[in-house]
Amino acid sequence: MKKLTDEEIEKKLGSLEGWSYTDEGIQTSFEFENFKEAFTLMTRIAFEAEAMDHHPNWTNVYNTLEITLSTHDAGGVTAKDFKLAKAIEDIVNAE
Amino acid sequence: MKKLTDEEIEKKLGSLEGWSYTDEGIQTSFEFENFKEAFTLMTRIAFEAEAMDHHPNWTNVYNTLEITLSTHDAGGVTAKDFKLAKAIEDIVNAE
Repeated sequence: MKKLTDEEIEKKLGSLEGWSYTDEGIQTSFEFENFKEAFTLMTRIAFEAEAMDHHPNWTNVYNTLEITLSTHDAGGVTAKDFKLAKAIEDIVNAE
Repeated sequence: MKKLTDEEIEKKLGSLEGWSYTDEGIQTSFEFENFKEAFTLMTRIAFEAEAMDHHPNWTNVYNTLEITLSTHDAGGVTAKDFKLAKAIEDIVNAE
């Protein structure tokens, strides 16, 4: 899995909503109604991530969820991160 | 819910294993076999936290889980945090 260039990453970010590119990877955050809603979404995302064998770096505090995606083995952001980001977007938008 | 003093916190930490006290609250971290195990434990903890109406600040990266507990309304660490910490310890030790 090849690390994407900054240019490729910026271009791909255009197809997602509310994600940004930082030194840590591609990032987004969500605010849900309460903890139960946040954890419900996390559970759906967890199953997708496990099926993809690609996992998020994520932090949950009550109703908030911050997600950072990067590919450790590639030392940067790869197509796998965008695939998971798209899956996360679909899960959250399906609410 | 009254904020505990530093002395009270240090004393109560003695009854837990592997927790420390920082500016952010009381903290611990776990390392599980893989993501599936980590998220399974998180799910058990999530149900306990929701039942207590007291929620963790937690970060998961693959098989690791970092947890910080504090009581926002009290501006510090309270007995509620130690109750949740004990529940977390029991859940993890039950594995």
